[in-house]
Amino acid sequence: MTREEAHALDLADPLARFRDAFDLPSGVIYLDGNSLGPPPLSAHERLERTSRREWGEGLVRSWNAAAWIEAPLRVGGKIARLIGANPGEVTVADATSVNIFKLAAGALSLRPGRRTILSETASFPTDLYALQGLVALLDGRAQLKTVAPEDLVAAIDDETAVVVLTHVHYKSALRWDMAAVTAAAHAKGALVLWDLCHTAGAIAADLNGAQADLAVGCGYKYLNGGPGAPAFLFVAERHQSAIRSPLWGWMGHAAPFAFEDGYRGAPDIRGQVTGTPPILALAALEAGVDLQLEADPSLVEAKGLALADLFIAEAEASADPELRLASPRDAARRGLHLAFAHPAGYAIVQALIARGVIGDFRAPDIARFGFSPLFLGYAEVWDAAQALGEVLASRAWDRPEFQARAAVT
Amino acid sequence: MTREEAHALDLADPLARFRDAFDLPSGVIYLDGNSLGPPPLSAHERLERTSRREWGEGLVRSWNAAAWIEAPLRVGGKIARLIGANPGEVTVADATSVNIFKLAAGALSLRPGRRTILSETASFPTDLYALQGLVALLDGRAQLKTVAPEDLVAAIDDETAVVVLTHVHYKSALRWDMAAVTAAAHAKGALVLWDLCHTAGAIAADLNGAQADLAVGCGYKYLNGGPGAPAFLFVAERHQSAIRSPLWGWMGHAAPFAFEDGYRGAPDIRGQVTGTPPILALAALEAGVDLQLEADPSLVEAKGLALADLFIAEAEASADPELRLASPRDAARRGLHLAFAHPAGYAIVQALIARGVIGDFRAPDIARFGFSPLFLGYAEVWDAAQALGEVLASRAWDRPEFQARAAVT
Repeated sequence: MTREEAHALDLADPLARFRDAFDLPSGVIYLDGNSLGPPPLSAHERLERTSRREWGEGLVRSWNAAAWIEAPLRVGGKIARLIGANPGEVTVADATSVNIFKLAAGALSLRPGRRTILSETASFPTDLYALQGLVALLDGRAQLKTVAPEDLVAAIDDETAVVVLTHVHYKSALRWDMAAVTAAAHAKGALVLWDLCHTAGAIAADLNGAQADLAVGCGYKYLNGGPGAPAFLFVAERHQSAIRSPLWGWMGHAAPFAFEDGYRGAPDIRGQVTGTPPILALAALEAGVDLQLEADPSLVEAKGLALADLFIAEAEASADPELRLASPRDAARRGLHLAFAHPAGYAIVQALIARGVIGDFRAPDIARFGFSPLFLGYAEVWDAAQALGEVLASRAWDRPEFQARAAVT
Repeated sequence: MTREEAHALDLADPLARFRDAFDLPSGVIYLDGNSLGPPPLSAHERLERTSRREWGEGLVRSWNAAAWIEAPLRVGGKIARLIGANPGEVTVADATSVNIFKLAAGALSLRPGRRTILSETASFPTDLYALQGLVALLDGRAQLKTVAPEDLVAAIDDETAVVVLTHVHYKSALRWDMAAVTAAAHAKGALVLWDLCHTAGAIAADLNGAQADLAVGCGYKYLNGGPGAPAFLFVAERHQSAIRSPLWGWMGHAAPFAFEDGYRGAPDIRGQVTGTPPILALAALEAGVDLQLEADPSLVEAKGLALADLFIAEAEASADPELRLASPRDAARRGLHLAFAHPAGYAIVQALIARGVIGDFRAPDIARFGFSPLFLGYAEVWDAAQALGEVLASRAWDRPEFQARAAVT
């Protein structure tokens, strides 16, 4: 493809108008929205309004007057529309790691007599860590079994309480078939807990279409909700009355302001909320979600995959024999980022950042590039691929300053 | 006291200068900083800088360049100075409810063979709920015993793993003697987990002076860190290598960016961190904490207690026979708020709010007023007490619009 052809795609792109809704620095091609999405301009405005008007002028009255108390379920209800869920099935709460813990424990409560939590090796670490922590706490009443992805479906058996999978893998971008895995698990009487961190705002997921049981996800990637944005969780309505959260907090109580000594969990999705909602963070997240809701999810997914296909073609034209696509070549099996293995992966990413092309690195050797459809254009991605080709061809990465590891890679 | 005498106290007040550092609306006397502290002006500025410059211009690079990754321990280290702890003993993390769960489970891990968690009846509900949830999850391996405050010390025995207490009670403001209770617990081989929600930024606590073991607290009350600000937790250095958190997340891993499949908890306070730090919320919290650090904690405590003493004297001069002080009269046994019981407590609070005097209500009959020393003055508190007297004398509260309950009371 020529740059002119890429530019022509931009001119015909129905999502192109979204670029102006983001605050992105000039001189940067941002291929890391899959790690931290950039701010919508409206996020700055919402934060300022929430801080100055609601917090400053409204003070504590804003819990009612500005409907702060409703924010977790209100924003959750909006996220629901992006992932094929109903409004009362999603709430914003805590961090992804904490929500994995809550819903995996909840899944065990829904499947008494079954003690196996099944997941895949090399999943995003925090998912595995949360499950390992739960199993350690339960001291023999649950076990975590991890198998290679290709062995996963066959490993579901009548001991399996819940299968925990990231729908789109954080490194390879391999995308599970949500409906197929869910059906396979249900056939064995097991539940599935989906991690949608790399899905929400990227892939047109259909939780209820897939008969999904449980899900979690984060707000700071494709939802562009801000660094460390609060996470969300989904519990299918049919499970809400029976599921039992292990983390009981006052905001999950059926009557929080009755200040009762004994916990009575709310019988709906609110039973999964713990502490006081993080209002400032929710304001930024809501701005990101509101913007996302303006775009057709199927167009979002299709454009992201097309951008990645373009990048693959151009990057492979660089013909570096050490560069290897470590994501599925078939777009239907991918999320919206790409992994390229290269022995100098870390330094290559640093050399690209020095040129204004921001991707990231995942150990041991993966250069990772994300293709957020709302703020990236085809010509921009074409440029980024040329920059990668130049860095590889010139070995521009082979300089000491690109080897030094920072705290966060 | 006359208003002129109260005003004279303001003129001599070494903390009076702090008033100008806050964004408070005109026409309001804010006696609810114990529920939600008002914004420091610097919080607005920090939020804007974090959102526009660090998130917008810096993007994902700010994890290193703006030291986002260090924020939980950096802000924790600052909070440590307000509560008599060392920098490496405090981190910001999660919500108070979640931190209670973590540290109570951690306390059980430090006292194997002991299964009793001891707390007081009518404690702040979320503390009891978090403990009830933990006990339910542990299914017989722990029990929660709650006793009346006056029976608490005697109830500590050699089955007690940990005593969980709010240092300053959310309703009555009764303040426990931290050193005495800790010593009594230690004498029986038990630990103490202190909830400092109504202490940090208010009472000059000395955790290490009291040989304290564990503590949690919130950021949105006297630390003025914003609605739903992230919470903090303290683990005494001597316990850090042995304590085991039940919530394992990637940010608590010894090497988060090694992306290992197996969890290895950081051997220091970072082992209590779970998910990605909430950077926007941390920015506001840090502004509040930084401001608090400019004030001498003993002056803060003394002024808050003096403001409350003034309010008691003036409110009782109203001579409503149904108004009863439900907080300790002895300032040395109180935190910085006051509870007054009155059969019309809810409506009285609403009538006061309508006059610009903002307190809050706690079921069943408590009108609660907080005396945050950094932004309140003596004359202002005198005015508030007169307003209360007028509302009581005129029965101004006895109107239908003051009876209607809002979602958040």
